[in-house]
Amino acid sequence: MITKSVFGNAVFSDKISEALGSVQFPDGPTNLYQPIKYILSLAGKRVRPQLVILGADLFGHSNIEEVVPASVAIEYFHNFTLIHDDIMDKAPLRRGQETVHQKWNEDVAILSGDALLIKAYEQLAKCPAIFVPSLLTTFNKVALEVCEGQQMDMDFETLESVSEEEYVNMIRLKTSVLLGGALEMGAIIAGATSEQRNKVYDFGENLGIAFQLQDDILDAFGDPATFGKQIGGDIIVNKKTILHILLKEELNVADSEVFASILKMTSAESSEKIVQMKGLYEKYDVLSKANALKEYYTQCAYTSLSQIDVVDKRKEELFSLADHLMYRAR
Amino acid sequence: MITKSVFGNAVFSDKISEALGSVQFPDGPTNLYQPIKYILSLAGKRVRPQLVILGADLFGHSNIEEVVPASVAIEYFHNFTLIHDDIMDKAPLRRGQETVHQKWNEDVAILSGDALLIKAYEQLAKCPAIFVPSLLTTFNKVALEVCEGQQMDMDFETLESVSEEEYVNMIRLKTSVLLGGALEMGAIIAGATSEQRNKVYDFGENLGIAFQLQDDILDAFGDPATFGKQIGGDIIVNKKTILHILLKEELNVADSEVFASILKMTSAESSEKIVQMKGLYEKYDVLSKANALKEYYTQCAYTSLSQIDVVDKRKEELFSLADHLMYRAR
Repeated sequence: MITKSVFGNAVFSDKISEALGSVQFPDGPTNLYQPIKYILSLAGKRVRPQLVILGADLFGHSNIEEVVPASVAIEYFHNFTLIHDDIMDKAPLRRGQETVHQKWNEDVAILSGDALLIKAYEQLAKCPAIFVPSLLTTFNKVALEVCEGQQMDMDFETLESVSEEEYVNMIRLKTSVLLGGALEMGAIIAGATSEQRNKVYDFGENLGIAFQLQDDILDAFGDPATFGKQIGGDIIVNKKTILHILLKEELNVADSEVFASILKMTSAESSEKIVQMKGLYEKYDVLSKANALKEYYTQCAYTSLSQIDVVDKRKEELFSLADHLMYRAR
Repeated sequence: MITKSVFGNAVFSDKISEALGSVQFPDGPTNLYQPIKYILSLAGKRVRPQLVILGADLFGHSNIEEVVPASVAIEYFHNFTLIHDDIMDKAPLRRGQETVHQKWNEDVAILSGDALLIKAYEQLAKCPAIFVPSLLTTFNKVALEVCEGQQMDMDFETLESVSEEEYVNMIRLKTSVLLGGALEMGAIIAGATSEQRNKVYDFGENLGIAFQLQDDILDAFGDPATFGKQIGGDIIVNKKTILHILLKEELNVADSEVFASILKMTSAESSEKIVQMKGLYEKYDVLSKANALKEYYTQCAYTSLSQIDVVDKRKEELFSLADHLMYRAR
């Protein structure tokens, strides 16, 4: 087991970069494969593929080569969702660069996204044959749930009101199940029992929910110097974040009217809109409530990891990952 | 082996309908699963799922239940391509009913298509475990080629000129490989050798090319009473069909100008446009050349089927299917 911090884990990182770099795409049709190479070149932190390797490493599987195809499959799937989600969200930029539908067009983005999803399954077919049926089942379940989460997210935009429960379920599906699934796929290749696989899945899923809640919190209350995005971006676009939802549940009649009027403020009044909304958040102590919820899911994640039946030393990487993700910029 | 005509094969048809009808989709999100149920309800002829069963039947596999999930996977995949292709083609109608993006919207069509592709892989995971890696490899290869074919088809629209070879390759990828792949997946489940699998794949692929060439021919020269679509539809929209491509290769300088002027005729001049273009087709004997090409691929298909190492009686269904497809409305 390698015990360096996860994002600094040079061995895992190098393996993933090498694997992603070594896959050959056909030369043509150019409009099908260029967008795929492009999105993969906008390298993110590669958290998800590392989770696959960490899931295997947790259960003592030391043959990284055997785990790499599943790891690449997860990264391809994630990038497929980025291409298609960006169309639906009409996003012009991704990781500071033009999105695929912006750089080419929507048809190209639809079809190259489809091809990238199929390329993910191509990687699954390269996993050790004995584990392929099981990996496929887990991957399909998670992939379908991610689609469900994306559909819910879009549906929520036009809903008058979304409950805390519905919201947590949406972020669970849209973003967290993939983290759990990535870890579980690693555990499958390591030959872990289904009970142990479920535990590491739960760790990933709960950590993902906590991370997403934290993202909502930081968007309004983060440190501008370290957050990396504009503070208050969600408030400006009336996004139904956990802060928005928790606030709306508590508002008295008079403040409901204030809240409604804040939502109607124009983009010219952005700064004032952020100040006023944060004023309501503070009045109703929404930050504490959101932090409590985040803590709840963080603790659920830690509990699941604690219960996994391997020596503590093997868990160090994942505990350190959780610390890294949850206590950044706080 | 059941020897009734393929589309009248009540046992296979019933099994497929039953299987398609018995798959439960979650209730929600409604906007994700309703479009899937809708597209599947616009029942086509279900040729592709029957091919999977026929591919297994050819090699003496009598347990239809074992073949049904792969058969459903192929039908799901086909319907996924319909949903996404209809967005790209801006098609308002499919099988006489509104297309998914027309009935809902493009975002719903993108995402429900994605989910349906994943549902296809969910069916693959239900196949006999020992064959899953092999089925997955064949399915992935074919699925990716279908995407390549669709991209080429879109690219061709804006190309000044497309060669006969490029065109045949495009239709091979866009429509024919799936027929070959469907048959091959059946053969895999029947435990056929890779040589025999390749033969039945070749039969399907060549038959698919021949069928598509025939479709181009019938669009201009079919009997309006039996063709089912408007005669000359391809001519009206300047579609680069095999007739268009073969003609363009042969035109003398003067007729090249006539051809260019026909292409510029407006929708108000549709009837005249069809008459003039068919005049050129006749002058250059394009119909004979296209028919010869179609016959070539039909014969390739028959040859592959003949070479398969099973008793002739087992091949009757597929020969009858080929006859049915190739000598319809002629």
